[in-house]
Amino acid sequence: MNKKEPVVAVVGATGAVGREMLLVLAQRRFPASCVKALASARSVGQRLEFDHPARQGTYPSGDGYLLVEELTPSSLDDVDIALFAAGSELARTYRSLLQQTETVLIDNSSAFRMDTDVPLVVPEVNGLDVQLHQGLIANPNCSTIQLVIVLSQLAKLAPLTRVVCSTYQAASGAGAAAMQELYEQTRQYLSGENLTIERFNHQIAFNCIPQIDVFLSDGFTKEEWKMVAETRKIMHLPALALAMTCVRVPVLRCHAESVNVEFSQHIEPGVAREALAQAPGIAVIDEPSAQTYPMPGLLAGTDDVYIGRLRKDHSVPHGLAFWSVADQLRKGAALNAVQIAELLLI
Amino acid sequence: MNKKEPVVAVVGATGAVGREMLLVLAQRRFPASCVKALASARSVGQRLEFDHPARQGTYPSGDGYLLVEELTPSSLDDVDIALFAAGSELARTYRSLLQQTETVLIDNSSAFRMDTDVPLVVPEVNGLDVQLHQGLIANPNCSTIQLVIVLSQLAKLAPLTRVVCSTYQAASGAGAAAMQELYEQTRQYLSGENLTIERFNHQIAFNCIPQIDVFLSDGFTKEEWKMVAETRKIMHLPALALAMTCVRVPVLRCHAESVNVEFSQHIEPGVAREALAQAPGIAVIDEPSAQTYPMPGLLAGTDDVYIGRLRKDHSVPHGLAFWSVADQLRKGAALNAVQIAELLLI
Repeated sequence: MNKKEPVVAVVGATGAVGREMLLVLAQRRFPASCVKALASARSVGQRLEFDHPARQGTYPSGDGYLLVEELTPSSLDDVDIALFAAGSELARTYRSLLQQTETVLIDNSSAFRMDTDVPLVVPEVNGLDVQLHQGLIANPNCSTIQLVIVLSQLAKLAPLTRVVCSTYQAASGAGAAAMQELYEQTRQYLSGENLTIERFNHQIAFNCIPQIDVFLSDGFTKEEWKMVAETRKIMHLPALALAMTCVRVPVLRCHAESVNVEFSQHIEPGVAREALAQAPGIAVIDEPSAQTYPMPGLLAGTDDVYIGRLRKDHSVPHGLAFWSVADQLRKGAALNAVQIAELLLI
Repeated sequence: MNKKEPVVAVVGATGAVGREMLLVLAQRRFPASCVKALASARSVGQRLEFDHPARQGTYPSGDGYLLVEELTPSSLDDVDIALFAAGSELARTYRSLLQQTETVLIDNSSAFRMDTDVPLVVPEVNGLDVQLHQGLIANPNCSTIQLVIVLSQLAKLAPLTRVVCSTYQAASGAGAAAMQELYEQTRQYLSGENLTIERFNHQIAFNCIPQIDVFLSDGFTKEEWKMVAETRKIMHLPALALAMTCVRVPVLRCHAESVNVEFSQHIEPGVAREALAQAPGIAVIDEPSAQTYPMPGLLAGTDDVYIGRLRKDHSVPHGLAFWSVADQLRKGAALNAVQIAELLLI
């Protein structure tokens, strides 16, 4: 790969994560010689926002936008880094096609995350794992990224013995059409119309759905399983005890998590707060006396994982509790993938 | 008190809980000789739904409704049971006024719940405590009732060692005006108008607020403290280890809770599920293969505490996890208060 000026493709560019990937590439002035927006044939010619003032002229674009090109095997011939946000099936197909090429695939789907020869990376946590890649790096699940970036910092203070987490996950995790369904269904609800339920298993307007992804045989959902398995892999702690409950809430694009962490020794909340405040990718918003804490409805478009409500958990000898919020489309997906791509250029 | 045919007053009858108390009294055909709807002077003459076919004629009402009368000290002169849903301040005032009378006050506020001479009662859990009353019985916090009714059944299977709970609480817990604010603010959001924020500390439309009630010095909210202290009192387990995180979500009137329970010995999920299915006041909706579980947006107006997602918690030696939903205005407030009143008639 030409590390200085790679050709980058965003595959699935018209989806919620794909669009955000383009925004993040532009906002971070990712040093690409060319960025391609690839999608299925029916999206060809669509204009996608892509405002990269430093190098506007070098892109196949108009003023502030890219034109969508069709994803075909040959469309990736000149591509150094392919950011895939197109689901597991397409990722599997292109993984095979690209295996003998120099193209590095950074995949946002769950297809390869647990493969032993595929690094699963959150740059702030296990960025060095990128070096082990064999042409494919997996981007973790959104709710995993948000959790592991905090747990990895806390684990530096003292070994973790158990983590209990309940999530409050936004509609965006199910894609752009799901966000639209929340909007439209809410409008229908307020108007007394029949509700259109297509993207979620049940009504999402003014409701909480305690199921994300499919159920496994032990009563957990695949989303809950992902959070456990991926966290263990990213942290290199294969036996870490984690208990997850994943819940969809009527919020548009930031996830929240309520977390209780147990340590092997005493950690003062103030010490943890200070460590988190100084950690990369984390911002602390935690002033109870001013009723200040992170909230998912108010942090869309931000890049950090926000921490608040940090306090001692009195129910165990060495416990802390906290609340976190992160934009599911940014750090939970697009930003993390672009950060992985940045590591490839170092 | 005339146990067979008491005179019953609902105080704060025009509020969300007060209206629900009237509905519950009517639906359960509470054997009162008279029911009075009391509120402040400005509500006098308002008609409140009260359809009690068995004894319609005996109430100071029209066809299917009661007329609101003004709450004054003398308005309670002939009252045997006063169901108070009028806040802590009024409850304190009338507690003093009624102390030398035969009137029994069942109070929904938090004013007296932790007083050692005041029973705090969930009929299915500690109904016998009603007998210890000295003219006042406290109705627990809504999220406490929903939790303790399940924990008390699980504790019959094996001693509990720790409970971790994160809540998803509805707008109704903050009153009728708060429910209206969620409605109206959501409409404003969809229309792109400025949001009216009065009843909550922050925007509630498409948001989650990790604060209910005020903050205490240890970083917990008073709502979280209530859930701990009240659960211990109701279960007669003053040292039970509980960790709570209370969160307001944009749902209208049912609370949900994600709960991880640790036991002193192994309990099979199937055994717990069977025990809960047979317990009074609990209904199990738990068929993952059919994507069936309780959801707060779909259970408004119901009386039971609904349990689903019951499964083994692999992160501890003897753990179970579950998800519960209950109507905050019914079992969480009005129904529980009326059930306490029913115990007074036995």
